Amino acid sequence: MSVFQHVEFEQHEQVVFFHDASSGLKAIVAIHDTQLGPALGGCRMWPYESESQAITDVLRLSKGMTYKSALANLKLGGGKSVIIGHPRQDKSQALLEAMGRCLESLGGRYIAAEDSGTGVADLKVMSKHTSYVAGIHDRPGLVGGRNNGDPSPATAYGVFVGLQAAVQARFGHRSLQGLKVAIQGVGNVGYRLAQHLHAAGAQLYVSDIYPDAVAKAQAELGATVVSSDEIASLDVDVFAPCAMGAVLNDASIQAMQAKVVAGAANNQLERECHDRQLHEKGILYAPDFAINAGGIIDIYYERVGYDPLLVKSHVEGVSNTLSMIFERSQVESRPTGAIALELAKEKIRNSRA
Amino acid sequence: MSVFQHVEFEQHEQVVFFHDASSGLKAIVAIHDTQLGPALGGCRMWPYESESQAITDVLRLSKGMTYKSALANLKLGGGKSVIIGHPRQDKSQALLEAMGRCLESLGGRYIAAEDSGTGVADLKVMSKHTSYVAGIHDRPGLVGGRNNGDPSPATAYGVFVGLQAAVQARFGHRSLQGLKVAIQGVGNVGYRLAQHLHAAGAQLYVSDIYPDAVAKAQAELGATVVSSDEIASLDVDVFAPCAMGAVLNDASIQAMQAKVVAGAANNQLERECHDRQLHEKGILYAPDFAINAGGIIDIYYERVGYDPLLVKSHVEGVSNTLSMIFERSQVESRPTGAIALELAKEKIRNSRA
Repeated sequence: MSVFQHVEFEQHEQVVFFHDASSGLKAIVAIHDTQLGPALGGCRMWPYESESQAITDVLRLSKGMTYKSALANLKLGGGKSVIIGHPRQDKSQALLEAMGRCLESLGGRYIAAEDSGTGVADLKVMSKHTSYVAGIHDRPGLVGGRNNGDPSPATAYGVFVGLQAAVQARFGHRSLQGLKVAIQGVGNVGYRLAQHLHAAGAQLYVSDIYPDAVAKAQAELGATVVSSDEIASLDVDVFAPCAMGAVLNDASIQAMQAKVVAGAANNQLERECHDRQLHEKGILYAPDFAINAGGIIDIYYERVGYDPLLVKSHVEGVSNTLSMIFERSQVESRPTGAIALELAKEKIRNSRA
Repeated sequence: MSVFQHVEFEQHEQVVFFHDASSGLKAIVAIHDTQLGPALGGCRMWPYESESQAITDVLRLSKGMTYKSALANLKLGGGKSVIIGHPRQDKSQALLEAMGRCLESLGGRYIAAEDSGTGVADLKVMSKHTSYVAGIHDRPGLVGGRNNGDPSPATAYGVFVGLQAAVQARFGHRSLQGLKVAIQGVGNVGYRLAQHLHAAGAQLYVSDIYPDAVAKAQAELGATVVSSDEIASLDVDVFAPCAMGAVLNDASIQAMQAKVVAGAANNQLERECHDRQLHEKGILYAPDFAINAGGIIDIYYERVGYDPLLVKSHVEGVSNTLSMIFERSQVESRPTGAIALELAKEKIRNSRA
């Protein structure tokens, strides 16, 4: 294991290992790029089996945030943090407060948001010692009601409009009426996406590791419940991965019958080559960091002044960004993931000029 | 290689990897302990063969600074930084300025001083972007004249009084008249130590990788020039290592005829067991981080207000600290290095109470 020589290092500006003896905190903060603004990204808590696994994860996710924010036209850089530990067994008030002090010591170069294993309540504890956390304030919801800071509704809404753009590009119409969509994971984001799709007339197939979640989708949205093993290979129009990463791999692409992949999960491609495999098989892939930017857009506005109408418009921009990507992909006959990355890097370069 | 699991990690508070793409800077800052104050330690530039070597070096040195400052009764914690690169080939204005910005981003938790491969001029360049560098201001010299910020004269003076304390403990007299001292390395510190010893009537044997240096000691101080291979095994009273670390090892201890080891080099013991080997052979070892604290004392006063008389008195305290260590070592029949570490840890614990 190494840091500077790590295959995912790719020009990170800063990687910090924090340790607090009294609370047992061990955390790594990765700051990939701050050219567009402070690095904003989730603070994940996970029982990594090894330090090396934690480093690989944080570097990879951090880099992804740079491109996600750039592509979403936000004045934010990319970063991420991981706390090594089990969120149910090792989390304590003292540990979260220590993490808050660590974040504060970075002087605002990195701003943490909720992520796997952490929630709004945890970030509020951290915020006792730092202002460099985001997504913790009560505010008007994007689709009515109130929202406690959770960016999931915005993420789901962005995926929904992005999915429409993909359907338009692949099938030539925007209507989702009667469209068959397989959703892998109906948690915070996936369930909200399912609600939008159901309202638009789509026919849903869902899987989840939690039986409660799929039962609810079946009862409320008329979804067909399928096993996690078959969700990616169903005879549907759209596959929407909204759970774990690396679901687009040799085996799943081989078996896939869907013509569009458009979902909320991070790091959907197992490896870079799978971008090309999808392209060659004629499956239109909506690059994950382009389609799931709704959450980061939402959080950004919390820091600069929250107006739900502005946020909604900005999230709807996901559709336009994807359309550009799809068009360039078609014209140049190159995979969408590569095009999206190229666009993000162009935006960063142009901001410097 | 790992950080949290590294054998030298020992409760470091923070380890930061910095990278600046435009200047090529790759640096690691290790902050071991800030319980007594901000972590102060040298910024070394070295062409490490591997990242893993750099990490081992920075963690080990950083920890040493915690104990050095605690033992010297300074309100400072321990830290260190390394820039990976060749000081003659890779150093540039842009790289040093980038390092300055990195230091600034740590908000004063770590303060850099000169070290191998960096000098006062380099730190002045860094200081364009940060106030967290030390040892860069012109001031009255400890032994007369002016000093541009270089802590070497204070280090040398501390080693000189510490060597006297060791001679007193081992031979029962403080006079150095006619004492045979072998000095390994007559650079910035070693040469000044040689001057003090010569003035006190000692008979000198010197070695150095640079022929000019030994030629000067021969001409000005009447020193006998010997090869680097034989300097540690000469038939002398005192061996003063003032060059590289790890010079106290199985082979050198086996061949050693000196009865006292008292020199300026950092990390003189190759491994912990060599502390005991020296003890068992009846060689009185002045622990490196106790005897070479003059430099850090000097730098400390630059930050709190420099009065050469106060600094000189404080540096002379090295003698008292060593006498305490020697006494406890004799009473408890335990090696001096272990005693010194124990004393340092006691001082940190007591400061918290």
